[in-house]
Formats: sequence, structure tokens, C-alpha cells
Amino acid sequence: MREKKIPPLVNDEEVSHLLDIPSPRLEDAYHKGIIKKYQKKGMNAIQFRKGLGPVEAGTMVIKGEEIEVIRGFPKIRRILMLHPALEKHFPDKVAVEEKMNGYNVRIALVDSEIVAFTRGGYVCPYTSRKAREILDLDDFFQDYPQMVICGEMVGTLNPYVSHYYPEVGKLGFRIFDLREKLTNVALPIMAKREILADYNLEPVKLLGVFPVKKAPQRILEIVKELGEHDREGVVMKDPQMQLDPLKYTSSQAQAAELEYALSFPFDLARAFLFSRIIREGFQSHETAESKDARRERALRMGESILYPMLETISKVENGELAAEDLLIEVENKEQADEFIRYLRDLKVMATLAEIKEGKAVIRRVHQSTNDRINNYLDGGLY
Amino acid sequence: MREKKIPPLVNDEEVSHLLDIPSPRLEDAYHKGIIKKYQKKGMNAIQFRKGLGPVEAGTMVIKGEEIEVIRGFPKIRRILMLHPALEKHFPDKVAVEEKMNGYNVRIALVDSEIVAFTRGGYVCPYTSRKAREILDLDDFFQDYPQMVICGEMVGTLNPYVSHYYPEVGKLGFRIFDLREKLTNVALPIMAKREILADYNLEPVKLLGVFPVKKAPQRILEIVKELGEHDREGVVMKDPQMQLDPLKYTSSQAQAAELEYALSFPFDLARAFLFSRIIREGFQSHETAESKDARRERALRMGESILYPMLETISKVENGELAAEDLLIEVENKEQADEFIRYLRDLKVMATLAEIKEGKAVIRRVHQSTNDRINNYLDGGLY
Repeated sequence: MREKKIPPLVNDEEVSHLLDIPSPRLEDAYHKGIIKKYQKKGMNAIQFRKGLGPVEAGTMVIKGEEIEVIRGFPKIRRILMLHPALEKHFPDKVAVEEKMNGYNVRIALVDSEIVAFTRGGYVCPYTSRKAREILDLDDFFQDYPQMVICGEMVGTLNPYVSHYYPEVGKLGFRIFDLREKLTNVALPIMAKREILADYNLEPVKLLGVFPVKKAPQRILEIVKELGEHDREGVVMKDPQMQLDPLKYTSSQAQAAELEYALSFPFDLARAFLFSRIIREGFQSHETAESKDARRERALRMGESILYPMLETISKVENGELAAEDLLIEVENKEQADEFIRYLRDLKVMATLAEIKEGKAVIRRVHQSTNDRINNYLDGGLY
Repeated sequence: MREKKIPPLVNDEEVSHLLDIPSPRLEDAYHKGIIKKYQKKGMNAIQFRKGLGPVEAGTMVIKGEEIEVIRGFPKIRRILMLHPALEKHFPDKVAVEEKMNGYNVRIALVDSEIVAFTRGGYVCPYTSRKAREILDLDDFFQDYPQMVICGEMVGTLNPYVSHYYPEVGKLGFRIFDLREKLTNVALPIMAKREILADYNLEPVKLLGVFPVKKAPQRILEIVKELGEHDREGVVMKDPQMQLDPLKYTSSQAQAAELEYALSFPFDLARAFLFSRIIREGFQSHETAESKDARRERALRMGESILYPMLETISKVENGELAAEDLLIEVENKEQADEFIRYLRDLKVMATLAEIKEGKAVIRRVHQSTNDRINNYLDGGLY
């Protein structure tokens, strides 16, 4: 195998110092593919495809006027049983914020420009453009150039996770963390909310701060209510943000994810099925549901597994493609093409189906689902 | 790595000739673990752990007075859509036999002794003993020493798949194939049934022989009826046995397998979930069910996923073990111990729970399920 030429940022002494990782270890990580070169739109950077020691996946080290480190957004662990996990994890109080169903975005100032990174550290052209359109961040970044705004891009007109929120509609951004660029230290809940209010920036909903003893029961009630309104769940945080947050989601969120996965069974279902089902099991156990509620949950699970599969089989039988249509707002074809090129860089195969009334329909075909359903409908053996 | 000493049977010229596989290829397969030495109960043999060319997994080559080849039972492929798979596969007529829910056993004469092999080629001591007890095979093997009897060990007192059949009860053996030792050629359906009748041996039920055009509809009706009686499904065969058989199972069989898998979610569910769900999808599609029937199927799926999981979580919470109890008939403790040793050879960890009224309770603990449920109940993060 040909030795890859190491990008200068990988064995830069300053980078090694900033990340507190010795250069040889960074070089080794580069050879293993943990770190990749990232050069798009004039940005000269390295991207952490996986975590390395304390440095999270999604971290970007960017060489501009100076070297900037935008740390990856930390993985939030899930709990299956609120009681006793909360008491074990939080010593005193638990702040409960809504977990919204969209995609994670970090926004930061890089060389005086506002840049939006996806979870993996990619600079999504659509997200960057929309972030600048939706949000007025100039004053904020004037005062806090070293901060990273971490939030969820939500709404129906987003290409990754399209979900309708009445208070959002087409596209909106809700902020859950303000973190320091290099250290990834997050502001305490109340400090964060005050600053966001000062700059007219929208936080995610704070649903309460509870003594840890009372938290499990209150959170179960909150999540039940959220689920009934087709909302995803909660993130539970130490009010001081000294401890890692935890997450917990509604049965309806699990059902929605099963539905999505089973719409493209041969592309997505294997990876989704097991964990969603396990979550349902423990949630049902913890809530000590009535026999009827339990049966309702079983039916909801069964329906979200069976029905989307049937819909896709019928669709393919009728000669249609098993595909997702992603909708984004564009001003011209170039913007749609740019987004498609960006997806292809991520190995997501998509094509432009049409542009109509300022919206581009980006079609993502799920090839295994098409191929295998066609094969079985045709009498192929399993 | 130390070179393993090659057992003489692997590079025996006669074996190479009988299997029509060159000796170097057999040696190579031995080094790859495809072939293993098998020396139990005075039997000097090699066992095919995987298939090699035309030789099926489970094939045993035994050196006795002469070299005997007991071919592995061929894998039966599944169809998801009866129509059009049957027409594609069978030119004319389809014989439909019941597929019973037990475990596959091949019985053959080796050095004048009647030996029972499991699917993988192992000589199960319990199966061998019970086969000799249940079946009177002396006359048959007197006349057909070169035949292998292939059938299903079924009933509640079997350690692998315990399932109640009213016509069987505790333990019974139903024969689906008579095959030639070396070639694996199977007798035609009617010839097989005639011979079995002559020797008072019980075949699986023949549910009909249908013109291929009519077969899909008839089989859907048959399988629906079987499912309603908690029976597994069918195997569809060319009456002349010149073509590979195919299998198709009832929704209830899928549900039962989901139930079993979800009783031990962290040990079994990942491997089981996906394929059972896919089968349900295509069956529901092909039968063009009413809305109500579809909802009933969804509920059945959901319940067979959720309820067994809940039962196991509660069990573990109450300090019980997530374990299966296998029941076998024994005359003394030595027979139980022998069976447990046999399971351990197969890497199945089991212990003797008790012996009572001639039955040994063999407990098979599902360790990951215990460990992980305990961890989550204890507040562990997912």
C-alpha cells in the first residue's frame, strides 16, 4: 500500500499541543482513517471521523488566520430505566430540556465567517446558508467569538430529518448548548438561557428542573405527554453542566423510527430494529402499564413494523421506486446541485427529481430495498 | 501457529475419491476449520462444519469396517411469495408435506449400529438412545443398509425444540426423506411413503399434490389452517425429488420464534428479528388481507415482541435467572450428565437443575440477557 502523505495539520506541533495528543499518535490515527484531511470551500482542515482519546468524533481542526478547534458534539448516552439511573447519575437536581427531532448542528465563527457543521463535522452548504438566513448571529459572535452554538435544525424543509413542529413549520433552529471552542465546556443551563434571551436566540424548551428523587416520575409524565403530541423526548442535564447529559424518548418516537426503517427494510431495518424494541421493553416495564396500555403499545410496535413494509412492497410492485424525497428550499438549480454533490461526498446517492416553487425535491433511492423486493416478488428464494 | 496434524481420513485417497474432492482441497479445508476431526464414542470420523463444494455442512465421513459417508441434510431455501416462486421453481406438480417444529435428525447404520446425527453431524446421545427406543428400525436397515432416514424429532420432551403436537405428545419421530448414504439422492415422495408404510414407520403428513398453477392458493389456505392450530408450515417438493424442496411458514410460527427470541433479547433477538419480520411482510402482502386481518397480524407481531421481553425483565428483577429449561427423559443421572457434556462440546452452557420422575431438567442460562437486564435495571447507561 502506498503511504499517504500526511497533511501538515496532523503533525503540527500547535495542534498536538491544543488537543493534548502527541503528534505520532495523530499520525497513526491519520493512517488508520480516524482523522481525514478536509478541504472544501477554501477551508483547510482535518476532521475526526472517529473519537480519539478525549477528542470527540466530528471535531474539526481548521487552519485559518490561526488554528481553530471546533470540538465534536459529545455523544449523549441513553437510559432505559429513569429510576434508578437518574439518581445514580445526578447528585441533586435534574434540568429537563426537550429533545427535538431534527439534526444536530454546530455553528461557529471561523475566520470571521459563520459556518455550520453537521454532527460529523461536515460543512453542509444548505445548513450554512439557512443558518445565516434564519438566525441573526452577528451580535452574538461579536461578543462571544470563542463560543460554539449547538442546536437542532428542525422542521419539514430539512433534508435530513423532516418532522413537523407547529411552532416551527418549515425550518427552525433551537439551541441546546453554548460550548467553548477548544475545551467543549458548556455553559450552565440558566447562564445559557440568559445569554440566548439577550441575543433573541431561541433555546429548546426547558421543561423543568426537578429534585432527582422526583425526576423519574415527572419525566415519565412529560415524555408521555410529548409522545401524545408526536414529539421525541427529553435530554436530562446537570443544571451546572458538569456531568454528561442523558436522553430518554417516547414510545411514539420509537414507533416513528421503526416506521422509517421498515419503509426501507433491506437498507435500514437491521440497524434500527433491535435497539428501538429494547427501549420499548424497558419503558413498558418501568411505567407498569395497564394491560390495555401494554396491548396498545404492542399494537403500535407491530403496526409501525408491518405497515410501512407493506406500503413499500406495494409501491415496488407497482413499478415505483423505494426512495425518500428530501425537500430543501433553493433559489436556483446550482444550490440544489451543490447539495447533491455534498451528499455524494458523504456516499449518499441522491438525484434531483424536480425544482418547483423554490423547493428542490432530492430523491434518495434505497437500492437494496428495491432490488430485493423486486427479486422476491419475482419468485426469488430467500 | 502450530501446524495441526492432519487426521488420516482427510488425506485418505478413498475419501477424496468418494467425495470427488481432491486431497489437497480437503487438507486446506481442514486447516480452515471447514472440516474437523470427530472422535466420540469410539467413532473415528471427520465432520464437515461448513459446506465444501457439493458436500453439505453436517456431512460425516466415518471410518469403520469400511468408509461410510453420511451426507449432510441439504439446506431448504425459503420463499417469501408463493406466487410466482412456485411456478418458477416447479415445472408441473408440487407435493406439499407438513414442516414440523422439532429438530432435524438423520438416522443411519454405521458398523451395524443405529446412530442418530443432528443437523450439524453430531451424534447426540439422547437422540440416539430415544431413536432406538421409539423406532423399530431393524427390519428397515436389514433391507436398506445404504439408506439414511431423515426426519424431525418432535414433541415436548425434546431438548432442542419443545413443541406440543396432540398426535405426538412427549416425543415422536416423523420421517420426511429417505436418502442414499453417499449420494444424498432422495426417493420420490410416493416410493418413500410406500416403503415407510411397509415398515410401519411414520412419515410427515402429505397435505396434497397440486398442479403448480393451483398450488399457491391451496398452500396459502393450508398454511393459514396450520397456523391456526399452532403448526409451523410446509415443505414443497417435486414429487420425483429431482428438484430442491422449498419451505414456507405460518404467521404463528414467525410469532412463536419472535417470542422465543425476545425472551432472551440480548442473546437471541438480533439474529432472529429481521428475517421473521420480513416473512410477515411478504405473507401479509401476498394474502391481500383485510384491514382487520392486517391489524391482527400487526398486533400478533407486536405482542410476540413486547410481552416475552417484559416477562423476562420482571423475572430478572425478581432475582430469577433468564434461562431455558430443557426437559429430557432419563433413567439415571449418568444419562443427564452425558447429555450436558455433549451440550458443552457444542459450546452450549447448561447445568442439571433437577431429576424428578424420570425427567431431567437441564438449565440453559442466557448470560448476556441476565447481565444486561440487571445492568439496566440498576441504572446502567445504554
